Amino acid sequence: MENQELRVQLLLTGDEIMSGDTVDSNSALIATRLKELSIGVYRKVTVGDDLALLQAELTAMAMASDVIIVNGGLGPTIDDLTAEVLAQVAGVPLVEHPQARAHLQSWCAGRNTSLNAANLKQAMLPQGVEVIPNPFGSAVGFSLSVHDCHIACTPGVPGELRAMMDTVLSDLALRFQRPAALNIIRLQTFGLGESTAQQMILDHLSDWPPEVELGFRAGAPQMEVKLTISQADALPAQQRCREQLVDLLGHHIIGEGNTRLAARVLQLLEQQGKTLTTAESCTGGLIASMLTAIPGASNGFHAGFVTYQNSIKQSVLGVTEASLNTEGAVSEAVVREMALGALDKANADYAIAVSGIAGPDGGTDEKPVGTVWLAWGSRDALRTRCLCWPVERSLFQTMIAAAGLDMIRRTLLGVDEEPDYFTQRRAS
Amino acid sequence: MENQELRVQLLLTGDEIMSGDTVDSNSALIATRLKELSIGVYRKVTVGDDLALLQAELTAMAMASDVIIVNGGLGPTIDDLTAEVLAQVAGVPLVEHPQARAHLQSWCAGRNTSLNAANLKQAMLPQGVEVIPNPFGSAVGFSLSVHDCHIACTPGVPGELRAMMDTVLSDLALRFQRPAALNIIRLQTFGLGESTAQQMILDHLSDWPPEVELGFRAGAPQMEVKLTISQADALPAQQRCREQLVDLLGHHIIGEGNTRLAARVLQLLEQQGKTLTTAESCTGGLIASMLTAIPGASNGFHAGFVTYQNSIKQSVLGVTEASLNTEGAVSEAVVREMALGALDKANADYAIAVSGIAGPDGGTDEKPVGTVWLAWGSRDALRTRCLCWPVERSLFQTMIAAAGLDMIRRTLLGVDEEPDYFTQRRAS
Repeated sequence: MENQELRVQLLLTGDEIMSGDTVDSNSALIATRLKELSIGVYRKVTVGDDLALLQAELTAMAMASDVIIVNGGLGPTIDDLTAEVLAQVAGVPLVEHPQARAHLQSWCAGRNTSLNAANLKQAMLPQGVEVIPNPFGSAVGFSLSVHDCHIACTPGVPGELRAMMDTVLSDLALRFQRPAALNIIRLQTFGLGESTAQQMILDHLSDWPPEVELGFRAGAPQMEVKLTISQADALPAQQRCREQLVDLLGHHIIGEGNTRLAARVLQLLEQQGKTLTTAESCTGGLIASMLTAIPGASNGFHAGFVTYQNSIKQSVLGVTEASLNTEGAVSEAVVREMALGALDKANADYAIAVSGIAGPDGGTDEKPVGTVWLAWGSRDALRTRCLCWPVERSLFQTMIAAAGLDMIRRTLLGVDEEPDYFTQRRAS
Repeated sequence: MENQELRVQLLLTGDEIMSGDTVDSNSALIATRLKELSIGVYRKVTVGDDLALLQAELTAMAMASDVIIVNGGLGPTIDDLTAEVLAQVAGVPLVEHPQARAHLQSWCAGRNTSLNAANLKQAMLPQGVEVIPNPFGSAVGFSLSVHDCHIACTPGVPGELRAMMDTVLSDLALRFQRPAALNIIRLQTFGLGESTAQQMILDHLSDWPPEVELGFRAGAPQMEVKLTISQADALPAQQRCREQLVDLLGHHIIGEGNTRLAARVLQLLEQQGKTLTTAESCTGGLIASMLTAIPGASNGFHAGFVTYQNSIKQSVLGVTEASLNTEGAVSEAVVREMALGALDKANADYAIAVSGIAGPDGGTDEKPVGTVWLAWGSRDALRTRCLCWPVERSLFQTMIAAAGLDMIRRTLLGVDEEPDYFTQRRAS
């Protein structure tokens, strides 16, 4: 069966996910796993633990889908309704399932408890289902075909769902003879807005092939550009698009897949046998924290300094009183001295130094909130720049920390050309 | 209009939430906020960025609902379809909305960028909509009534949605004459698991009044305990419950409302005219970053040191070679010397020092991944503790950074009693 022909929907049930008390991560888990079989989910519906609503949804879905994955409602309590709903939709009775009962017995035995009525409810399943084993919990999953639609019911406990997905996938692979996974190319970028990137593509790549789906996912600080194909014969077109995008977006591209900026910087440092240090004022440790979030960061990052107050900039990094008095803490002279001080104290090859006004207070007419001086590079090739990025404090800190890392990435790559955000956000 | 009569649905759009690349937390945010007006969501549907699907869903929903909140699809790119879908469902054209255009112009001006065609798409809205201002992003929200159903369209970027929900709520309150906001008391806690807290309440507060709804929201690092009432005459019962919880959970409670641990520490420092410094190894700047995320952090926090490598622990903080060689970097002697070095260099009153094994590599039989030594306090009252918190790297860093802040909070409050997580996670 072809990829686009398989219509898959998710039905999620649970009062806790309707009320907002719980964020549903199960549907993302299911969708991610289904991609292994090149299966996309085209619609998902979430309702509370309500018999009539669930029955109406499942009936309507079964008529419009090839596969439904139901999640939640398998537990022992009265608000767990999935087995009853499926039985009604399929027009079959609930019967005690020997495999489910045996599982419950051994599950209770392993916990030194005896089978009670609430547990036994979990052995009452729609007649004719196949059981999906649950290695961790008391509730087995089960599947049944109704109106030519394959319905698999899975537990809401994330660990139990995760453990069950292998069985669900191998069952679907057999049943629908799924091909290998879709091909998705993901390019990670920094410093281009979503609308700028799209405008560039519209302007320069007007003959975009329809079989290569273009997507954007703007995050802070990175933006992902995604090229998806659903047919193997579109592979060459996808490769051509990738090459065109690499030419067009240039060094705004950090890497492919899940590459994070800090991880790319650490990789380049390791390849070149170099180390980086940080001297942070307005980013307050965020650059160091982004680096040390990456496993193995210690190879390229040995030391960072958070010098939030002027006297500390002086005592720890050797910033001069003259620079602080004449130029102010947010100045080229000060970030330059911060960087040199950090290079010295950390005995590092490269430094990032940042001083700016994160807000909401502290701005002046001359230096409004969002003004920031960056210094980056090595002892003998230190560069500086003033930007103005007037956004909410935490976004400002995130974007400026990333800008510092990005300039070190460009330095390590020997790239001299100016990134788009430098042009866009030059302080006036 | 009575609470149960208002039928509210959510329509979520975005390829990234269908594919599993992004976990949808927006619908939980919306549902949580709607509770302030005693409004429950009874159904939500999620589909990708597909014009026909969105149109079919919104049409069907509008006939069966009083209120629909649409989330996502407001961006500048071609896969952002919400305005177009709403125009089609309402049978009105897309027209340039002056308020939206003015917002885009000032948004671009604030960023020194010029308005491009992609941006301008965000000013093309269905005729007759009311604009919902967006203080953070380029995309305004908008609302329109169709078939007696009030449809509000909101952005998918969580920070922008959050900022817009106040307007959405006050609009709904006016339109449907919802009662005044419910009274919600929120207690922020650190160091108690959800199930532990629930068990404590079951064991000790068995006569919980039914009119006070008890909720838990476990986050990392904090957990919120929420007391909700929907009738004014339940206020005294709510106050009693609060007092009982404060007694029961004790110093695990950080504060009320949205209090964050770092903000509470900074508040206590300011009240007492004291300063704090940090000496971080395995948390790599995260403690400093949590502090400096809070506006005004500079009053209580002047300097932090990220000493990720042994030689830096020595050169920057004066840790002795003897301690490093005899005890190892993850040891009581080393965190003690780190704390004393930082207190000295920063001329601060209090310090937090952390050294541990964040993983995934670097563990040994004697010191497995998750082992961490903490030192905290003042020069003449420095305390230390070893914990073992073997979780995934970023969660480990978050929880340990918070534990350090929490111990300073307890120190500043003069609390001597041991928090629950010290007992639970004591290294063996």
